[in-house]
Amino acid sequence: MSEFLNQLDTPDLEAMGIHGWPYGYSDQVRFHELDPLNHVNNASYLSWFENVRIRYFQYYGLSSYGQGDDDPQIVVRQQSVDYLAPMFQDERYVVTARTRLLKTSSLIMDYAVHSGGAVRASGSAVLVSLEQDGTARRPHKDAAIKRILATDGAERA
Amino acid sequence: MSEFLNQLDTPDLEAMGIHGWPYGYSDQVRFHELDPLNHVNNASYLSWFENVRIRYFQYYGLSSYGQGDDDPQIVVRQQSVDYLAPMFQDERYVVTARTRLLKTSSLIMDYAVHSGGAVRASGSAVLVSLEQDGTARRPHKDAAIKRILATDGAERA
Amino acid sequence: MSEFLNQLDTPDLEAMGIHGWPYGYSDQVRFHELDPLNHVNNASYLSWFENVRIRYFQYYGLSSYGQGDDDPQIVVRQQSVDYLAPMFQDERYVVTARTRLLKTSSLIMDYAVHSGGAVRASGSAVLVSLEQDGTARRPHKDAAIKRILATDGAERA
Amino acid sequence: MSEFLNQLDTPDLEAMGIHGWPYGYSDQVRFHELDPLNHVNNASYLSWFENVRIRYFQYYGLSSYGQGDDDPQIVVRQQSVDYLAPMFQDERYVVTARTRLLKTSSLIMDYAVHSGGAVRASGSAVLVSLEQDGTARRPHKDAAIKRILATDGAERA
Repeated sequence: MSEFLNQLDTPDLEAMGIHGWPYGYSDQVRFHELDPLNHVNNASYLSWFENVRIRYFQYYGLSSYGQGDDDPQIVVRQQSVDYLAPMFQDERYVVTARTRLLKTSSLIMDYAVHSGGAVRASGSAVLVSLEQDGTARRPHKDAAIKRILATDGAERA
Repeated sequence: MSEFLNQLDTPDLEAMGIHGWPYGYSDQVRFHELDPLNHVNNASYLSWFENVRIRYFQYYGLSSYGQGDDDPQIVVRQQSVDYLAPMFQDERYVVTARTRLLKTSSLIMDYAVHSGGAVRASGSAVLVSLEQDGTARRPHKDAAIKRILATDGAERA
Repeated sequence: MSEFLNQLDTPDLEAMGIHGWPYGYSDQVRFHELDPLNHVNNASYLSWFENVRIRYFQYYGLSSYGQGDDDPQIVVRQQSVDYLAPMFQDERYVVTARTRLLKTSSLIMDYAVHSGGAVRASGSAVLVSLEQDGTARRPHKDAAIKRILATDGAERA
Repeated sequence: MSEFLNQLDTPDLEAMGIHGWPYGYSDQVRFHELDPLNHVNNASYLSWFENVRIRYFQYYGLSSYGQGDDDPQIVVRQQSVDYLAPMFQDERYVVTARTRLLKTSSLIMDYAVHSGGAVRASGSAVLVSLEQDGTARRPHKDAAIKRILATDGAERA
């Protein structure tokens, strides 16, 4: 069993009819994520992408988020979200993540929110790996690179 | 299966060593709930209490949160929290709820956050049941009253 | 005096050395917007863009946010953020907004967060104007169109 | 001029008709603080109390929030909120704070949210001053004690 609640890997996702994604987790919309339009607020999707990204980094070994010297500090340099359909209170969903492009000390990831057999929102992020002091780039760990290339089919640049 | 993710009833909670609580759910600390002290921020506990309260109201039939005429609007009149120990990233926890005192159109609930065999935070709330227009009190539904008295051992006033 | 706290128009912004932006407001970083890295969390910037957008819509007359029939429902279809430099507790900043492209029932806006003479984050959003029931497009109000074209120098498409 | 935006001291507050409070700030309700009931969400009030508390601590010299060794870590041990009337989008308000009881290494504070000549919410918090490592109590700084006793009329225990 994973240390992450409701974590999903490729076979789990395939069994749910979600194809092309190596990693995700399932959750349910909470009241405090809604806004006066009765929809999930636009900013909440970024917190879901953040959740799946942090779990993904730990799962693939890019960072343990221990904030020790053996870990990089990985920061978001750019991100975008497409809002495809509104989401509602108590709605069950799956957030998925994968790496699209892997460079020496950065990566581009894609995200999606799935519910009711459709994608409700999709996003992408440009992430940069820094030393803990934030001043210089730090290359990704070899083991993490191998795993991402093997599992996600990420392009190498 | 419940429509609520990770929902827990009395036998589930007893099996986890959590006694005296009829209802709860399990979850895990998210990054956006932390503050610069690396702890869960104080305000986040209120969102957890809100989550368990809304699920509890639906489960016990006090309100379906449909915002239709057959539902009351239940508002928080007062609440308090005791912070007993800090909580950290990825920590697994259980939030529990019960009704302590049930009046005609109001109730007092207790909440607790359990982790690692201890209570990390506890709280209580005074809740008032109103008509949908918010101007007058609306008595609780009979079926919900019966269920709360039977399951929670709530005092009747 | 405006009904909006700390609202800034073109002359105000010019006086602060912020050029090319017709509208904005000033604010200060709050503790609950920070995350464990001691920076403003990535999702918080979207709430700032939302703040300035809602004020802008009211100020320019696109929507009064009254949720009555005389107002459209304006939804975010896509948005992106560039994070250029981290921001810290109590940091003073100005958020600015302008319309770049104005179509019959949609628009593209740009946003920026200014602090210490530099841009800390920039963003853009694609917004769609709908009827209150959310099913059909609703054209922008004429008065708002005139004002946006005159003040923002938006392109018309 | 203060480094804090919209900060208010006793004469400012008196001039606004808010009596008995030594410190506060003014602000305006934001869209992301609302929930589907169109009211300010209950948890948001705790963030406002946190904002005024952190500013108060810096203003009175209890902590500079520098997280250096010359500062205590001040944690919330208990807090409560009374919700007296709902608050709405764009509503202007003032949040005030004062110390009611001052002990060697703890204090009890009161808070209130004022709008339209009435108190919309009130609260109190029990705060404990710890060493930066969080293990032992640290007595308050003398200068801060003198200032709180003189300005707030706090009881000494």
